Amino acid sequence: MLRRTYDLQHCSVAATLELLGERWTILILRDVFLGIHRFDDFQRRLGIARNVLTDRLGFLVAEDILERRRYQERPERFEYRLTQKGLDLWPIVVEMLRWGDKHAIDGKPPLVLRHRDCGGKVGDRRVCTRCGAELGPADVHAEAGPGARPDRLPLAAA
Amino acid sequence: MLRRTYDLQHCSVAATLELLGERWTILILRDVFLGIHRFDDFQRRLGIARNVLTDRLGFLVAEDILERRRYQERPERFEYRLTQKGLDLWPIVVEMLRWGDKHAIDGKPPLVLRHRDCGGKVGDRRVCTRCGAELGPADVHAEAGPGARPDRLPLAAA
Repeated sequence: MLRRTYDLQHCSVAATLELLGERWTILILRDVFLGIHRFDDFQRRLGIARNVLTDRLGFLVAEDILERRRYQERPERFEYRLTQKGLDLWPIVVEMLRWGDKHAIDGKPPLVLRHRDCGGKVGDRRVCTRCGAELGPADVHAEAGPGARPDRLPLAAA
Repeated sequence: MLRRTYDLQHCSVAATLELLGERWTILILRDVFLGIHRFDDFQRRLGIARNVLTDRLGFLVAEDILERRRYQERPERFEYRLTQKGLDLWPIVVEMLRWGDKHAIDGKPPLVLRHRDCGGKVGDRRVCTRCGAELGPADVHAEAGPGARPDRLPLAAA
């Protein structure tokens, strides 16, 4: 947590980073946006200790970013879904993806988001590069990009 | 640095977080976007140890996000300016600001970005809420918002 370090700040950027900056949190959220919702799937994909994952998911639920929903009664099983507050993080995740594609990954995106309706890509300001629609998280699906590696996330185990 | 922890990932979001996720880095970038360019000003505003600040600025220069420019000859003095790669981070910072304003700061933004030309705010997709122009970092200025605290950053010492 960054909270104590940033006490001198009264700043929305710092406050957002306090939520997202904890190790693994942004990758859990990335996975939720990719359609991963269950504890064992997160654990397998991220390869982190179960107690750390429990802690991070609990924090995201406490912050009302994820919601824990029962999807099976016997035995009881739960999955994690984005709340509206969580869905509102999509622009941040998408802008991080776009910047990383351009500057941090040698020009070959591992993953491409495509507009479900027309197959266009997510362009500047999250507008479809083909039809010009303003896109949101429900309007796109992810597919392997030119830089995808079969043995690596984010898409390998999806 | 998150690099070692995220070795299993081949992902643009993870790669971006590796650059931005280090403590203080995002706040240094926020300050550069607010017009702060000099070592002593960063140091005073952020209140961090000089060796840590030196390290973070050196990292951002090495990553070609900031450029170190001499602005005075005797004695030699330098300032830090955003490269194009650095300017391209603006959408991430703005989306973090917008999310924080809405969800992490009790509805009273400490800082408001306004379109220089018409005084509108930065709305969804970084479009001006008044005139509809597509905004970039050079098109806006920051002013104190309804939640600004005179004794707190980001605007107090600007």
